[in-house]
Amino acid sequence: MADSNVLEKLVSLCKRRGFIFPGSEIYGGLTGTWDYGPLGVELLRNIKNAWWHDNVTLRDDIVGVDTAILMNRTVWQASGHEDAFTDPLIDCKTCKARFRADQIPESQCPRKPSKHPGEFAECQLTEARKFNLMFKTFVGPVEESAAMVYLRPETAQGIFVNFKNVLDSTRIKIPFGIAQVGKSFRNEITPKQFIFRSREFEQMEIEFFCHPSTSEQWYARWRDSRFQWYRNLGVKSDNLRLREHDKAELAFYSKGTSDIEYLFPWGWGELEGIAHRSDYDLQQHIKFSGKDLSYFDDETKERYVPHVIEPSAGATRSLLAFLCEAYAEEKIVDEDTKKEDMRTVLRLHPRLAPVKAAVFPLVKKDGMPERAHALHDDLRRRFQVFYDEKGAVGRRYRRQDEAGTPFCITIDGQTAQDQTVTIRDRDSMKQERVATDKVPGYLLERL
Amino acid sequence: MADSNVLEKLVSLCKRRGFIFPGSEIYGGLTGTWDYGPLGVELLRNIKNAWWHDNVTLRDDIVGVDTAILMNRTVWQASGHEDAFTDPLIDCKTCKARFRADQIPESQCPRKPSKHPGEFAECQLTEARKFNLMFKTFVGPVEESAAMVYLRPETAQGIFVNFKNVLDSTRIKIPFGIAQVGKSFRNEITPKQFIFRSREFEQMEIEFFCHPSTSEQWYARWRDSRFQWYRNLGVKSDNLRLREHDKAELAFYSKGTSDIEYLFPWGWGELEGIAHRSDYDLQQHIKFSGKDLSYFDDETKERYVPHVIEPSAGATRSLLAFLCEAYAEEKIVDEDTKKEDMRTVLRLHPRLAPVKAAVFPLVKKDGMPERAHALHDDLRRRFQVFYDEKGAVGRRYRRQDEAGTPFCITIDGQTAQDQTVTIRDRDSMKQERVATDKVPGYLLERL
Repeated sequence: MADSNVLEKLVSLCKRRGFIFPGSEIYGGLTGTWDYGPLGVELLRNIKNAWWHDNVTLRDDIVGVDTAILMNRTVWQASGHEDAFTDPLIDCKTCKARFRADQIPESQCPRKPSKHPGEFAECQLTEARKFNLMFKTFVGPVEESAAMVYLRPETAQGIFVNFKNVLDSTRIKIPFGIAQVGKSFRNEITPKQFIFRSREFEQMEIEFFCHPSTSEQWYARWRDSRFQWYRNLGVKSDNLRLREHDKAELAFYSKGTSDIEYLFPWGWGELEGIAHRSDYDLQQHIKFSGKDLSYFDDETKERYVPHVIEPSAGATRSLLAFLCEAYAEEKIVDEDTKKEDMRTVLRLHPRLAPVKAAVFPLVKKDGMPERAHALHDDLRRRFQVFYDEKGAVGRRYRRQDEAGTPFCITIDGQTAQDQTVTIRDRDSMKQERVATDKVPGYLLERL
Repeated sequence: MADSNVLEKLVSLCKRRGFIFPGSEIYGGLTGTWDYGPLGVELLRNIKNAWWHDNVTLRDDIVGVDTAILMNRTVWQASGHEDAFTDPLIDCKTCKARFRADQIPESQCPRKPSKHPGEFAECQLTEARKFNLMFKTFVGPVEESAAMVYLRPETAQGIFVNFKNVLDSTRIKIPFGIAQVGKSFRNEITPKQFIFRSREFEQMEIEFFCHPSTSEQWYARWRDSRFQWYRNLGVKSDNLRLREHDKAELAFYSKGTSDIEYLFPWGWGELEGIAHRSDYDLQQHIKFSGKDLSYFDDETKERYVPHVIEPSAGATRSLLAFLCEAYAEEKIVDEDTKKEDMRTVLRLHPRLAPVKAAVFPLVKKDGMPERAHALHDDLRRRFQVFYDEKGAVGRRYRRQDEAGTPFCITIDGQTAQDQTVTIRDRDSMKQERVATDKVPGYLLERL
């Protein structure tokens, strides 16, 4: 997959087929923002719903929350973000341009693009200064520091500040987790690599609270089960790896962190971090809020501040990985012309595919459109389905291949006689005849 | 429902049972922000999913998008928000307090709370000035006006700026709509009435594009079908009304607006506005972006700028209306003590209920917990279900009534003999015996 052409082709496919558009595009865009189109929004919904179903609905020990993007400023003082969530920046005194200190060797001097900043005699650089990556805004009608707040740079803190609320309002006992899906914002200096590093993105985070003595076990369990989740959704082992951080990479409070990384066209990139955060976050919030966030175990009569395992996934990053993994170009024989041709196909896992099945009448006569509409109306009560009657059937297959639709159902001349339709499999391109009334069951079994 | 006590009780129930918590609560809160707890997030998800299913999945003529919260500033110049999305504010020169001009008669002078601002001799008020309700922030490392952007105050503009992208990437033809669900932000001077007027909230919006000659029909159709949607989800006709705006209330470009209003405990409040916006928005974006946003009809060979009908609903406001509508207190006879008692019940529509069914062993012995766990494990692959074995069964019913759970399934002594369980209906409190293997079908039919 380490082929930068693939990224270019994928960006183009995403625009052309309505997965992803540049944000505010008709106004020249807004760097680092992206809009999800008709297919993209369904893919993103399917990823988030699969995550929620597997991690919240199916489990007794996890509950969800949905907390505000705007939070009291003290939250980010307690979490350490106000002090430490920074990138080092360097200014050019001459041209006023600004660069990330660690990216100077890859940057160009605006006055003399053949040189790096500082290499050109007229351009004098300042020392590196810290630049906070949180967006700030003001709440209420007066712009004064008391009302200054940040757009959250992660959803995790919304979970920690509600730890006690969740304990008090449910009967849940440790070990348990709180899950959240939602948008976060980071004022990246250099957004890049399509939606991978953007200024507005979506996260899927769990904070799993446990007794300190079981925290190592839970860490290992979460690391493995989250890795397996991507595998189950079709990411091949060669393109997915688990990278355990060295001691030197760990924050002082952390007892271990593993990244789940995907081999993107430009190289390995993080999809999810699973971190053993000890009791650091709750202790910080105890200190800054003055509230008791400890846990009392009814059975052992022990009171303690729980340790936390944090599986923190990027929803929009996962989407990009699923797309990269699904993208393929193949030589085929065209169904209409019987000639050799190329097809682009997205081999998305059926759970994630934006459209589950397309329904075609072979031709627009002999009652085929009516029969196709009837089947389509029946299927869409349960599935995301698409109806198409325009053009040669081979071209219609090609269009669905590009959209990642796992099944194409065609009503043909035989349908009127024996009530069967053909179902074409996206990946094998094989067709089988199935009785019309068996189609919902056929799909249900395979989706 | 116009009973302000009910609101107080509902706020308390929401906190106690984990529907809604004040935002950043352990830090003294952040006015106008709210966090959704374990039950609240499921209710909100169910509302948004019901809307998406009914308006996008079930329809051929609507597709979805999910666009960025941060947009290019020119979007809000084109839409008119930068100039006109304002409240009139008045300052007190003496104490520097700030008031909404139209709310002076309900406000208190901070120096002399028995008086309104301006009534107290020492307090001198300024003239009213316009205050823009959009939150602003800066994108990129330099705080200069070129990089200033707003948090979107509505999701609608994200749809308009993608009109051409959607046309170019799909085969959809007019008449068609684009739908979006997402967060919006308004820097309200006085957030109030629980989640009704908050600074961060969620919307469900459709822009439906049609030929000018059919726009009046589409306006009427959308007005009626959106009204019916709330009715179908259990809002009684007496508490729901459709209010057509007078000519005087309409924006100059609007050909008609209807509000769907709910009778909240404090009076009537807007849940959704259905507006006939003519071609105003697209024309503004044509003017400001210089892009051609017209539509070409292949069949009639006509090129025109479509008219737009906008059904714009509040997801979080709807949630509050559904909760108010569902809330009831009733005299009952307790199942355990056989004495008269009170119960609080949320009669939420089964599609919206956060938990669809609870599974109880009658007592913690004789294999009942094992059988209950087995049924629970089976059901949760398809439904949001809850297991509870603590306390008397009557108290467990009461807890589920408060959470709005439509069905409670109890495994009792008879289950071991004849493989049946009791299913209790939340509203009638009647129980019927159902064969264990018929339970999934029983629920499926009623949900």
